[in-house]
Amino acid sequence: MMNRILQALRANPLLWLLAAVPAVFAAEHLAPESHTMLFVLAVLAIVPLAALLSHATESVAAKTGDAVGGLLNATLGNLTELVIAITALRAGMLDLVKASLAGAIVTNSLFMLGMALLLGGLRHRVQEFNRGNARLQAAMLFLAAVALLIPSAIGASDRPGADAIMQQLSIGLAVLLLVAYVLGLLFSLGTHREFFAGASHDGAAEDEHLWPVRTALVMLAVVTVTVALVSEIFVESVQYAAASFGMTPAFVGFIVVAIVGAAAEMTAAFSAARKDRLDLSVGIALGSSTQIAMFVAPVLVLLSLFIAPTPMDLQFWQGAVIMVLISTLTVSMVASGGRSGWYLGVLLLLVYATFALTLYLVPPLTAS
Amino acid sequence: MMNRILQALRANPLLWLLAAVPAVFAAEHLAPESHTMLFVLAVLAIVPLAALLSHATESVAAKTGDAVGGLLNATLGNLTELVIAITALRAGMLDLVKASLAGAIVTNSLFMLGMALLLGGLRHRVQEFNRGNARLQAAMLFLAAVALLIPSAIGASDRPGADAIMQQLSIGLAVLLLVAYVLGLLFSLGTHREFFAGASHDGAAEDEHLWPVRTALVMLAVVTVTVALVSEIFVESVQYAAASFGMTPAFVGFIVVAIVGAAAEMTAAFSAARKDRLDLSVGIALGSSTQIAMFVAPVLVLLSLFIAPTPMDLQFWQGAVIMVLISTLTVSMVASGGRSGWYLGVLLLLVYATFALTLYLVPPLTAS
Amino acid sequence: MMNRILQALRANPLLWLLAAVPAVFAAEHLAPESHTMLFVLAVLAIVPLAALLSHATESVAAKTGDAVGGLLNATLGNLTELVIAITALRAGMLDLVKASLAGAIVTNSLFMLGMALLLGGLRHRVQEFNRGNARLQAAMLFLAAVALLIPSAIGASDRPGADAIMQQLSIGLAVLLLVAYVLGLLFSLGTHREFFAGASHDGAAEDEHLWPVRTALVMLAVVTVTVALVSEIFVESVQYAAASFGMTPAFVGFIVVAIVGAAAEMTAAFSAARKDRLDLSVGIALGSSTQIAMFVAPVLVLLSLFIAPTPMDLQFWQGAVIMVLISTLTVSMVASGGRSGWYLGVLLLLVYATFALTLYLVPPLTAS
Repeated sequence: MMNRILQALRANPLLWLLAAVPAVFAAEHLAPESHTMLFVLAVLAIVPLAALLSHATESVAAKTGDAVGGLLNATLGNLTELVIAITALRAGMLDLVKASLAGAIVTNSLFMLGMALLLGGLRHRVQEFNRGNARLQAAMLFLAAVALLIPSAIGASDRPGADAIMQQLSIGLAVLLLVAYVLGLLFSLGTHREFFAGASHDGAAEDEHLWPVRTALVMLAVVTVTVALVSEIFVESVQYAAASFGMTPAFVGFIVVAIVGAAAEMTAAFSAARKDRLDLSVGIALGSSTQIAMFVAPVLVLLSLFIAPTPMDLQFWQGAVIMVLISTLTVSMVASGGRSGWYLGVLLLLVYATFALTLYLVPPLTAS
Repeated sequence: MMNRILQALRANPLLWLLAAVPAVFAAEHLAPESHTMLFVLAVLAIVPLAALLSHATESVAAKTGDAVGGLLNATLGNLTELVIAITALRAGMLDLVKASLAGAIVTNSLFMLGMALLLGGLRHRVQEFNRGNARLQAAMLFLAAVALLIPSAIGASDRPGADAIMQQLSIGLAVLLLVAYVLGLLFSLGTHREFFAGASHDGAAEDEHLWPVRTALVMLAVVTVTVALVSEIFVESVQYAAASFGMTPAFVGFIVVAIVGAAAEMTAAFSAARKDRLDLSVGIALGSSTQIAMFVAPVLVLLSLFIAPTPMDLQFWQGAVIMVLISTLTVSMVASGGRSGWYLGVLLLLVYATFALTLYLVPPLTAS
Repeated sequence: MMNRILQALRANPLLWLLAAVPAVFAAEHLAPESHTMLFVLAVLAIVPLAALLSHATESVAAKTGDAVGGLLNATLGNLTELVIAITALRAGMLDLVKASLAGAIVTNSLFMLGMALLLGGLRHRVQEFNRGNARLQAAMLFLAAVALLIPSAIGASDRPGADAIMQQLSIGLAVLLLVAYVLGLLFSLGTHREFFAGASHDGAAEDEHLWPVRTALVMLAVVTVTVALVSEIFVESVQYAAASFGMTPAFVGFIVVAIVGAAAEMTAAFSAARKDRLDLSVGIALGSSTQIAMFVAPVLVLLSLFIAPTPMDLQFWQGAVIMVLISTLTVSMVASGGRSGWYLGVLLLLVYATFALTLYLVPPLTAS
């Protein structure tokens, strides 16, 4: 098994960051008050752990046949985000969780896709991708995002009993979204396996060394636990660290948590783009955004009823609503082109940068 | 003529609901205070009447040649909605009328199209449709909806004399929309008959037994009068019934009236989808939405000057504006794909369900 | 040189309006209080001057090779708007400048493109254009507009120090937009010259008589100075004139300045459409909108730090934000069709007319 890990280290230099894992535990023991250092080490530790989780999931998925494998990939694909969010949920940091949900959709749509188009475009003059698939995936992302955001867009804060109404509405929406998600799995893993031809995650693993199932299952368990432990340090330190960097919790959730949580998928999307497999990059970026909206967010709403000090609703602050809607519209326009050059990536990153700058300078008054 | 009706009954089982027509009149005579029962019977009676109206219109249209026939189909296609709305307008229920206008656009775009894609997709694995036409129609719907909604989106309620300004603006807009509508008829019935190839309503009647012109004209007159009489019972009972079902007038207008009014078109759109004629379904769903925005709404604004206790303006409540805009954007994304499976229908219905749930739990504070 | 001017007069009847140039200077000397007359004369004078500027730019561009020429066209293409805006900026009329920026994007997208489709469609039954290019350009416009508008959409006016924050944010955004603009020039003039095949401005000059470089350079200098002088009269008289026409400064900036400033480009776009070269029309309309967002607006923000009485930020009033976003979405939908008839032009003009009517009847309370 050591051997496998070394092999993986050679294939993915990110994994050298694994050294941050023991470092962060040691630091927590020795200097529990050095919040900024703990925060930085935790971030550095989560990135390679996410890559390992992703590799382990793919290894299991590859061996268990298409349907179960697809299911695993689909549900465990955003496992890192889920574990971090659950830790924050238990700590009652609902604003951080909501910011990281909105941020994950925006970051995956604009930053992940933008960087993939830029990196791919720097190596290949013009890149083509299947516009039919991209359009369908973008439409799905838009629909999922709209369903997630509609209560915030309509707003109920101007009436008595608003909190109770919003809580009811959020639970209803979470159930609707999960039902739609399960039907989506039935659709894409069942009879319509090739409907989104060429856009599946599975392809990502093709040219990597997969682990045997037993190794993969052990890794899956061990790494998930490790991510959970590191997440706890991360969540504890994040507020102090944010303050010392001059960042608000909303900024940390929207930008930092979202990028850290999606690090593994980003590596895969960027590497696919550089290999001129833009369909795969688009599939990863749009797919994981959709999954955040249709799976991670509703699961967290329902879980919050049991594990959070107070339940979490789906009331996002106005800026988050606008940013998510614009991101999904943006992606849908870019997707409908079917052709890319590096400048398209620059433009997506421009929009992302303006979002980040706005959020940095004009944080939401109440973070939710 | 009895024979024709029996034939029609066999072809369209909806027509058995015609039994509700005498029932509703009897009930009004015998139990004028049983509002809930009157409401249910009126709804049941309107559905088959709408189907008869639609069939009569098509029969006349088929015999009068393309240009006049197209004109008839275009102007009488939403006759049921128009008659119900006129009745409500005369009763001064402006909020109900406005909610039903916004609701009709949303219902036709999301529910009618979503259900058509779902029903069609359950029978046919993958359905293709002409994406060029669908995109053009979606763009037209978006433009019409934007023109209708812009005064509400900009908003004037924060200044003195807001009501008078909004009234002026609404009349100006209604005239602009009607001019554009007439030019649209010139375009599509005149020189550019095949511009939206394969998307005309006419096809709907192809495989049904059309009535001779005289029968059709008589039916048109008789049924319109009947719809008007039933509408009066409907409008009188709707507020009491809504209260007893725990629904707000906005919910009734947005969801119930919209679905009832479009029942006939829905039957046609669903049956076309099951016959794998998705172009026709898309044409009916988008066409009748566009017609609400460009014909029914402005006609009602102008009529309200003469028949309503107070004139109706085009100030919709904020939630309605957001829902209509999102519906039209959604439809345009789905249309641009040109390919459908049942899951796309599920997603459209998901968005519709979130709208309905939001409206049910968070009704607008003032219904307009 | 006189000869060249006469030649140009024959080719472009607009140039007869040059008679208004001496007239406006004479009027300013003789009747400095006749603001309305000065305003009308100034408008009439700017239109042919803009056409001359545009022709001079193209003449220089054609002779200096592709890269430099493209650069000239790209940076001087909106020179008229820039000169008018700088004059207004120095006079401290920030609201007028901001209204004209938002108005220029809306006018170029809806009015210029709508009129081009209408005029082209009246001569040619169905016109096709390259939908791939159109979609890419529409996506770029959307991205640029979003980056420009995001601070207004998020809003900061509800907190202490809002003005200082907005100023910081605007400067940051201006720098980001200019960097993206320069990268865009590198992209489209450098390695990816044919990425937007057939959509360059250069084609516009093909069948006109270009001037020799020396004539062109002299004209460029002389006309720019003249435009600056006329702009001063225009800016001085605009407020009085607007009042006497019953128009608000916002209406004048959004509609009048925007149409006047883009008169030259409109002539080119309309003439191309009538020659069935719709790709060129679309390219001009979308290209100059994008340039306003990515070049003119940020340059004015940065210049305002030095030449305006108080610096200009990018806080637009809510109606402007909505209108710009809807315009860019609209254009993107129309572009994705790839096919046009005259009615599509009518619909774009309908939306423009509803915007103008709304702005006329419901001016923003504070113009910015």
